[in-house]
Amino acid sequence: MIYFNSDYTEGCHPAILAKLAETNREQTPGYGEDDYCKLAADKIREACQAPEADVHFLTGGTQTNMTVTAAALKPYQGVITASCGHINVHETGAPEAAGHKCLVMETPDGRLTARQIAAYTDAHYADESAEHMVQPKMVYLSYPTETGTIYKKEELREISRVCRERGLFLFLDGARLGYGLMCRENDLTLAEIAEYTDIFYIGGTKVGALFGEAVVITREELKVDFRYHIKQRGAMLAKGRLLGIQFLTLFEDNRYFEISAHAARLAEKLKEELIKMNIPFYSDSPTNQQFVILPDALLEQLKKTYVFSHVARVDGTHSAVRLCTSWATREEDVDQLLADIRGLLGL
Amino acid sequence: MIYFNSDYTEGCHPAILAKLAETNREQTPGYGEDDYCKLAADKIREACQAPEADVHFLTGGTQTNMTVTAAALKPYQGVITASCGHINVHETGAPEAAGHKCLVMETPDGRLTARQIAAYTDAHYADESAEHMVQPKMVYLSYPTETGTIYKKEELREISRVCRERGLFLFLDGARLGYGLMCRENDLTLAEIAEYTDIFYIGGTKVGALFGEAVVITREELKVDFRYHIKQRGAMLAKGRLLGIQFLTLFEDNRYFEISAHAARLAEKLKEELIKMNIPFYSDSPTNQQFVILPDALLEQLKKTYVFSHVARVDGTHSAVRLCTSWATREEDVDQLLADIRGLLGL
Amino acid sequence: MIYFNSDYTEGCHPAILAKLAETNREQTPGYGEDDYCKLAADKIREACQAPEADVHFLTGGTQTNMTVTAAALKPYQGVITASCGHINVHETGAPEAAGHKCLVMETPDGRLTARQIAAYTDAHYADESAEHMVQPKMVYLSYPTETGTIYKKEELREISRVCRERGLFLFLDGARLGYGLMCRENDLTLAEIAEYTDIFYIGGTKVGALFGEAVVITREELKVDFRYHIKQRGAMLAKGRLLGIQFLTLFEDNRYFEISAHAARLAEKLKEELIKMNIPFYSDSPTNQQFVILPDALLEQLKKTYVFSHVARVDGTHSAVRLCTSWATREEDVDQLLADIRGLLGL
Amino acid sequence: MIYFNSDYTEGCHPAILAKLAETNREQTPGYGEDDYCKLAADKIREACQAPEADVHFLTGGTQTNMTVTAAALKPYQGVITASCGHINVHETGAPEAAGHKCLVMETPDGRLTARQIAAYTDAHYADESAEHMVQPKMVYLSYPTETGTIYKKEELREISRVCRERGLFLFLDGARLGYGLMCRENDLTLAEIAEYTDIFYIGGTKVGALFGEAVVITREELKVDFRYHIKQRGAMLAKGRLLGIQFLTLFEDNRYFEISAHAARLAEKLKEELIKMNIPFYSDSPTNQQFVILPDALLEQLKKTYVFSHVARVDGTHSAVRLCTSWATREEDVDQLLADIRGLLGL
Repeated sequence: MIYFNSDYTEGCHPAILAKLAETNREQTPGYGEDDYCKLAADKIREACQAPEADVHFLTGGTQTNMTVTAAALKPYQGVITASCGHINVHETGAPEAAGHKCLVMETPDGRLTARQIAAYTDAHYADESAEHMVQPKMVYLSYPTETGTIYKKEELREISRVCRERGLFLFLDGARLGYGLMCRENDLTLAEIAEYTDIFYIGGTKVGALFGEAVVITREELKVDFRYHIKQRGAMLAKGRLLGIQFLTLFEDNRYFEISAHAARLAEKLKEELIKMNIPFYSDSPTNQQFVILPDALLEQLKKTYVFSHVARVDGTHSAVRLCTSWATREEDVDQLLADIRGLLGL
Repeated sequence: MIYFNSDYTEGCHPAILAKLAETNREQTPGYGEDDYCKLAADKIREACQAPEADVHFLTGGTQTNMTVTAAALKPYQGVITASCGHINVHETGAPEAAGHKCLVMETPDGRLTARQIAAYTDAHYADESAEHMVQPKMVYLSYPTETGTIYKKEELREISRVCRERGLFLFLDGARLGYGLMCRENDLTLAEIAEYTDIFYIGGTKVGALFGEAVVITREELKVDFRYHIKQRGAMLAKGRLLGIQFLTLFEDNRYFEISAHAARLAEKLKEELIKMNIPFYSDSPTNQQFVILPDALLEQLKKTYVFSHVARVDGTHSAVRLCTSWATREEDVDQLLADIRGLLGL
Repeated sequence: MIYFNSDYTEGCHPAILAKLAETNREQTPGYGEDDYCKLAADKIREACQAPEADVHFLTGGTQTNMTVTAAALKPYQGVITASCGHINVHETGAPEAAGHKCLVMETPDGRLTARQIAAYTDAHYADESAEHMVQPKMVYLSYPTETGTIYKKEELREISRVCRERGLFLFLDGARLGYGLMCRENDLTLAEIAEYTDIFYIGGTKVGALFGEAVVITREELKVDFRYHIKQRGAMLAKGRLLGIQFLTLFEDNRYFEISAHAARLAEKLKEELIKMNIPFYSDSPTNQQFVILPDALLEQLKKTYVFSHVARVDGTHSAVRLCTSWATREEDVDQLLADIRGLLGL
Repeated sequence: MIYFNSDYTEGCHPAILAKLAETNREQTPGYGEDDYCKLAADKIREACQAPEADVHFLTGGTQTNMTVTAAALKPYQGVITASCGHINVHETGAPEAAGHKCLVMETPDGRLTARQIAAYTDAHYADESAEHMVQPKMVYLSYPTETGTIYKKEELREISRVCRERGLFLFLDGARLGYGLMCRENDLTLAEIAEYTDIFYIGGTKVGALFGEAVVITREELKVDFRYHIKQRGAMLAKGRLLGIQFLTLFEDNRYFEISAHAARLAEKLKEELIKMNIPFYSDSPTNQQFVILPDALLEQLKKTYVFSHVARVDGTHSAVRLCTSWATREEDVDQLLADIRGLLGL
């Protein structure tokens, strides 16, 4: 079977494996206080052009979102999120288990707007019984979003402005950050993301690492005692160097960006070819997740060889599925999939 | 520098690294639903002689303790623990963050007794204002304990009996399980631990893995929806197979037990030789953690070459330190340390 | 000023005040273990025709909703609610602070349907990654709802059936229960509410008491250790008899129903007369809360004498406001308000 | 039966009842935004000589402790308390349910010392793995303590100094504040308590009110958004004026202090007379709670007429019980009790 269902189906980039083997017998301090973590943090600060940023390494996305939320909010404060936000849908209530409400907004494509955020927040403070309601205090963006879309520079800058005017923290979930940054439509740099947000993370799990997310904190008040939060949420890896080694390897030799570009290019190829076959899309994604609508009969055939993620039933005879490329995707697998679809369609 | 401060200073057993490399390009389902996890769970059920047990893989100890506590207790229920229990001291309040009080008992050496547990629980229910106090519902034991001691078979059986009579869950934290099971003084088997407890975990992080703990659940009511809890606590690894691969490798060819025995033997050597030098011990540990009392002047000399964990100041001129052996400890390092101490003492 | 903004603007029914004075010097046990609480619970069981029900007295609505939610749900479970539900909007995130997500559904008028509940729950269990999402476990209905509407017997029965088939607890928030039961359109009895739900509460704060809500539990598993939950949530009144005395007085001589009927009748009068004046309504409420749309200019005049709750801006020149009647409303105040509106409208 | 078991066995001071009756038909805004609450807050600020303080009214002690703890601490921070502190023993884990660990210290008589607090806090920050442990951030004192003892001015001033040096909030639980302030041994004023602490509360439930505690906040950062916390914890009474009316009445005409002095005087009489009878005491309390050791046989006789709180079994034939006086205690009841004990002892 060939898996296109997600971007976490393989192990890790071979350079990481090599580095893990090479350093395996070394003895280091635990809990992220080793030199690999320090070096990786330096590399990331440099890539972000944020010399004052704090960088921490956690093992997974839900864990990271939970830890950031718990660290940033007081008990009566909530996080503004798109209704399809990972934090709202696919974390089994982790933010709520940490005591915080998701303040949910509808969006056409997973992207919040500055206007929405401003209107909601202003309405809260204008309400005479504001204290009977959860106070908005953080905005959660995923980049790319759960539907594969991205924020353009101008949009993120405007969201940032609106947040800063209103005292809202801006948190960007970059589980698939590389795949956003390296797609053709993108006009944002990593440094701009660091500049416009208060805290964000660079996803490793889906972008070449075995596991791991690098949290970058630029806002002073969010830096305070962050390691206490990490430990309390069960997110402090004993052999923390594993995270340092991985991110150090990813941020050497432009590797993070190159492997992301590989996935982006294959996704673009997939998209273009499927468009040529007149296959409709469930969302218009420029990134490594492509959401396509296929006839169920065709899907049944494809499922003999390929694994997809089911997204939604579209009508009585069609379904939407997600196809992901990643750093690990082989171009020949993409080509074979395209050929097989063409064949099944009789093109 | 040679690290004796802890048992998580190196990477992992080479067989694990080899297996990770070998399987790196394979594509598998995520979140622990791959075949490696299934096979590893089978191996563990077999080793525990517990064919009906549920086995889940999490990444670290605090995370596991937090998830188990959250899963087992209702909001008004607490967990009985020795005052030095990891859950009470070194998890930055993770159980409390999940809403639960540690019901703390003093012990001479980190080991709770059946009598203590029974007395506390009976006193709770006998109190006319019981409902004004946290209800004891789970007992947390670490095995080996934080001071290196272990429970003997008869002690664990009696604790188990007392718990079952009173409706208390018995949870055993086996972060260093192998080092307890394979020490000379031990008379318990893994199967007996599975039999006497309701839920326990087999530590990987400190016993040969890069990371990972295997939770074994034998009590039916604790099995219900456990994966929801794992996900909610940020403890469900996307590339779950990494845990399956590691535990599969550890439980092949008796590896977990052999590498544990290695650490136990070196700790015993260390202990015996230090006793011969008339060095006093801070606790009487039969396992891989040895707590010794050394003159500060001697320690200053040793610290040029070795890293220890500081435990306590004993008096104006002596300190207690922890020396750990592990699966990765080299016998020549132990020998050198012993020789250096002898030399410094002029023996 | 004459307050029509809410149903908690006065103190309490004079019979309660008399009883408080009469019993003031009596000495009783604390924490709800006095005879007044026992007698009041008996009266309520009788009124509910639920001899096996447990009855507990708490002081307020948010507190009660929080305590019930915390008692009923495991950490990964959530509560289905209409988006306008009090629990979702006006409790400053109390359910989330207790760790639970509100699973929010849109409704035309604040009323959930059996079909919605069934569809949502079935979709959850049909999803292959169900454990990544919050599990629906309780349904929260307010009766009357926040828009003044009520469930008809057939609707509640069907919701109950759907919940029982799916293992969902059905919880009814009866902060204004009397005003629902005694309105003209209602076809439900208190006994039927007890029968169809698993747990509900009879509101006292808004229906004649100084404060207090009576929780009625008919489902066995929700009865377990409920007093521990009450105490833990800060909801166990030291002088618990104050609650017993109030509910005993309300449930003597049919008082609860009679004073509710008074409010219902005055609301109906208000509604009928406003309809005659062709004043549009913001929602079609049969109960003591009436939501009317008035020209801003008219409102400005009325605000010199009356207090309303602002609900929404409807257009550039109109607003929706809430008018409440209660056990304490004077018919002459209603008549004067109607006369003043008529006068201002030149009718 | 005559109740000496607690200080919350009666209703309220008659002046409160009169005021409730007098104002019963008045219409006021809800949720503590009425004029009675404003006036009561002014009176309290004046009595505290703290014109800048914020004053809030909650309904009970556990609720207040829970709300303050939730408001003051970040998730990884805990509250230092004596092991017998109400917050640690008799709140069914309410602080933990809000996510916070009680950092427990042993005391001879319920009173923490400045030295203990300083040593614990300094040790925390000196520990190289501080972030693996709960960070101390607030100190909880009860005044009087659970054993009836009080802090002297010099002790409280020193605790305050130690807290301020270390950035710890100082919170004083004054559930029985009046009984401490008005006892003969006391040398503290209400204004000094306001000065030395950051937040404290003046107990009403046990000192003349039906219910209610007045929280006084002098530290700026604890004032922020406190009403959100109150609402979220279910502690915002709809008819908030009930609290305003009660505290206004208590703080008029020196009433709070006079009724407290009454209880203190009767407790002193009780103590002196029991000492004359050579009855031993379980703790040396100068306040309204007296803890005496009585022969079980004598207790059996007394229990035919009196209700006490059982505290502890002292030996095979003696028990410790608590006798409380309060604003409501009749001197003739105290005299009769003393006479009965004398009679039973054959004195």
